Amino acid sequence: MKYAREILSDVEGYVPGEQPKTADIVKLNTNENPYPASPKVLEALAEMGPDALRTYPDPVASKLRAACAKLYGYPNEAWVIAGNGMDEILALALRTFVDPGDAVLTPYPTYSLYKILTQLHGAVYVEDDLDDRYQLCESFFGRKARLCLLSRPNAPTGVASPREEVERLCKEFEGIVLIDEAYVDFAEDSCMDFPRRFENVIVARTFSKSYSLAGMRLGTATANPDLIREFLKTKDSYNLNAFTQAAGIAAIEDREHFEVTVAKVKATRSRLTDALRGLGFAVQQSQANFVLARWQGQPDAEGIFEALRARNILVRYFKMRGLKDCLRISVGTEGETDTLLEALRAIIR
Amino acid sequence: MKYAREILSDVEGYVPGEQPKTADIVKLNTNENPYPASPKVLEALAEMGPDALRTYPDPVASKLRAACAKLYGYPNEAWVIAGNGMDEILALALRTFVDPGDAVLTPYPTYSLYKILTQLHGAVYVEDDLDDRYQLCESFFGRKARLCLLSRPNAPTGVASPREEVERLCKEFEGIVLIDEAYVDFAEDSCMDFPRRFENVIVARTFSKSYSLAGMRLGTATANPDLIREFLKTKDSYNLNAFTQAAGIAAIEDREHFEVTVAKVKATRSRLTDALRGLGFAVQQSQANFVLARWQGQPDAEGIFEALRARNILVRYFKMRGLKDCLRISVGTEGETDTLLEALRAIIR
Repeated sequence: MKYAREILSDVEGYVPGEQPKTADIVKLNTNENPYPASPKVLEALAEMGPDALRTYPDPVASKLRAACAKLYGYPNEAWVIAGNGMDEILALALRTFVDPGDAVLTPYPTYSLYKILTQLHGAVYVEDDLDDRYQLCESFFGRKARLCLLSRPNAPTGVASPREEVERLCKEFEGIVLIDEAYVDFAEDSCMDFPRRFENVIVARTFSKSYSLAGMRLGTATANPDLIREFLKTKDSYNLNAFTQAAGIAAIEDREHFEVTVAKVKATRSRLTDALRGLGFAVQQSQANFVLARWQGQPDAEGIFEALRARNILVRYFKMRGLKDCLRISVGTEGETDTLLEALRAIIR
Repeated sequence: MKYAREILSDVEGYVPGEQPKTADIVKLNTNENPYPASPKVLEALAEMGPDALRTYPDPVASKLRAACAKLYGYPNEAWVIAGNGMDEILALALRTFVDPGDAVLTPYPTYSLYKILTQLHGAVYVEDDLDDRYQLCESFFGRKARLCLLSRPNAPTGVASPREEVERLCKEFEGIVLIDEAYVDFAEDSCMDFPRRFENVIVARTFSKSYSLAGMRLGTATANPDLIREFLKTKDSYNLNAFTQAAGIAAIEDREHFEVTVAKVKATRSRLTDALRGLGFAVQQSQANFVLARWQGQPDAEGIFEALRARNILVRYFKMRGLKDCLRISVGTEGETDTLLEALRAIIR
């Protein structure tokens, strides 16, 4: 391509999990929440009038950021930036803190978008393999980079590094540590207090999973105000539309709905984990709204993936080193989980 | 700032026009449409249910892009990309077609965001002054750069380069020419046919002005499918939320509302231009939904800007070379225009 940048020639672009158009599908492949968002969200959106369409939205999303700061235990909006999904937050972190040619450190395996964003930015992607329990190896702590992207709980493993290990990393690492807490509301603990304690730590969150707002695109980063000020320079001037800002505020306000939904997902995750183990899958305790299930039998994992697909059940299969014998399965409703387990029983006999 | 990129130290970030919180303001400073969007848009949004919130939106916005392609006279969605406002489209053009260190060419004066985006990308901003009728000089055609950003009609001048001149530029320029048609629906003609004829031309549009959807954030780029394919690599995976996609489709479908609204704005622009000239302002014929009014008398332009502000009337004043004796005034409703003209008469006596 004559006009495009050379660095794009190697980039395929992120391949999102399949989004089928038909309704008949049990969709356990993109870690969406199986339960709806708080009804308060649609109520808030229904109140938006013609002026919310016609006029520019608040460019710095002040009310939303203030609501997030309160939720996350920070004094005010100066500690938070809101973005057009976690995608934008991650891309902004690169554009704000990494020069082309600099290194970006991640464990392997992890969220595959990290690598693509790093390539698009012209930075150098450095991976350090997790051990066989999906924990950081000692070598990880010796690596040098401008930015470390640490998904906690990690995707697609579902495993969270112990807080003490992350704390050690934040202390020893010379660059920025971005802790991606996309799945943390399903986990036992969070590192949301770290930005107060470490000047080099960013904690990123999304409303796509625990708040059931994937369709609205809302992510946040929490960090000390000096870092947030730099973030604000690199974001698009009006990066968050008026509806997404209103949806986020309404979702935060309905705490009860949030807690009930998260509790249901965690209960089903527990049942799913036990049932998969009973079928012979090796499943580590997940702290996310999905499980990674390892399978050594016949048909192989890819065969199971295809067989499920033929039955209109979508899960995620990664043809990647260390994951070829695994399926990543989102936690669905109780009924979807029954359907999945029944199909698995039939497929593996 | 220890952790941020060196290139950010000189960047102030884009300063959007003031967004007052009170209702009592005549707001003629950000080129919003004074008339509401089609009522079909709010109707379409009211039909969005919990699943539109819960699930990921179409990552490539197929239906919306197909609707835009039809609107723009192109065969299918492969010719169009949709972005989170024109802001994202412009930023993507840099990320897709310009390497850090490369040159980006624009006329001066033009939309001030171009310079900020170029700085953020680490590219070199090259300006070539417009002549005193706000037209491109011969020197512009000799410049070399990776990307040319040409706002047509131009902001803040309101003047459009003749199509033949833009055609000559597209033929002679060795890089990508992005024609920013944010205001073109208020103009006499468009260059939307150029992407079919030139492999290096991108035409960008926004729904913020003529469609009264500034609050939704929707912009598009039209170009040959080879360029669009590269664009798709650099955009965030889910860059457009479900509501914005639906709003765009609904707005396109209500052609009558669009035409009536645009006609009203053009009629008021005509009256505003005549009245300003009658008051002694020098106003070139605008092809946008604002006018640039030059003023040589007393109080000076900045004084008028402040005096209007004291009367709760916001217009835009740019403290920039060549613009210090000008006011940029958005075309408001008939009533807002009366209020403005009455205030001006009182201020300049």
